[in-house]
Amino acid sequence: MKIMVIGASGALGTAVSAELSARHETVAIGRTSGDFHADMRELTSLRTMFQKVGKVDAIVCTAGSVHFGPWSELTPEKFELGLRDKLMGQVNVVLAGQEFLHDGGSFTLTSGILSEDPIRYGVAASLVNGALESFVRGAAIELARGLRINAVSPTVIEESMSSFGPYFRGYKPVPASHAALAYSKSVEGKQTGLAIVAPDCI
Amino acid sequence: MKIMVIGASGALGTAVSAELSARHETVAIGRTSGDFHADMRELTSLRTMFQKVGKVDAIVCTAGSVHFGPWSELTPEKFELGLRDKLMGQVNVVLAGQEFLHDGGSFTLTSGILSEDPIRYGVAASLVNGALESFVRGAAIELARGLRINAVSPTVIEESMSSFGPYFRGYKPVPASHAALAYSKSVEGKQTGLAIVAPDCI
Repeated sequence: MKIMVIGASGALGTAVSAELSARHETVAIGRTSGDFHADMRELTSLRTMFQKVGKVDAIVCTAGSVHFGPWSELTPEKFELGLRDKLMGQVNVVLAGQEFLHDGGSFTLTSGILSEDPIRYGVAASLVNGALESFVRGAAIELARGLRINAVSPTVIEESMSSFGPYFRGYKPVPASHAALAYSKSVEGKQTGLAIVAPDCI
Repeated sequence: MKIMVIGASGALGTAVSAELSARHETVAIGRTSGDFHADMRELTSLRTMFQKVGKVDAIVCTAGSVHFGPWSELTPEKFELGLRDKLMGQVNVVLAGQEFLHDGGSFTLTSGILSEDPIRYGVAASLVNGALESFVRGAAIELARGLRINAVSPTVIEESMSSFGPYFRGYKPVPASHAALAYSKSVEGKQTGLAIVAPDCI
């Protein structure tokens, strides 16, 4: 398969690319790094990138930012960051990317454990992750030509513990290489419409 | 209790107001109808309204629009309607309203069955409903002074079958008066962080 990994330079994207490139051809996409560049907040930026890459068998997205911070300081603008970036960025990937997938191809987006299991400071991430998992359920029944779509819900990964560890006390971190297996299950399996939980965190 | 019902003039809001006003004082809020007016898409509009009404024991929201339409015609702008209105409108109600709730007071928002059980044309609604249910989970652990928050997930209601019926084939419609019981459970119970499913639809 030819597989596009959007966000390939991140901790998760690096592990997913390593897992998939053992068996497949991967194309790395980043805002400023990788083989091709796109800003997923902009549909036109994605379209330009997809046209350059050409058709692929799977599109994986491990990119997306959300705001973390104290409840008492939340504003609509702080929610907006995640709505624009991690949420609509990934929705844009699907809207723009579907015509660049071969029949039977797949999207694999990234949600996160906070949709179900919230933490202090994490409500904007909870909102975005819940939105993505329900979007995937809805999109799965709408996509044409046998296209599939899943979200992977990783927990906090070991490689990010230096920055995210204090937020995730009591959560068992998993190596990014384990979380990457959930992406492989989505890409190389036949399921659709699922939030696939990374191994070790159920 | 003194209970504010935002969206009181809608089919669901009318039934919720009827259920709660049998035992409590209700204040009807609408964009242009009701005792006081606010546009929940604007934090400042909500703040002005909350200041006029003064402190209450519960804030219920049954308002919010989302786009329904063919998958092939979806654009980021069509998702934007629901993000601005049903999703961030209700988040704004919580951000602006928390200081106007008495200690131990509650928010009850409205999500919907499509977060879990999608329909054709409904992916933007699925996304918004999933976002709201995860927001409620996250907000429940953050709110101060014993404040509670739940979402009610009604199915399609009988009173809306003339407009929504064709989208919801195979779903059992419930009378709005039954769905209203789920709002009563949130307001008059002690639960927090839940998506409460309307009776008759489980």
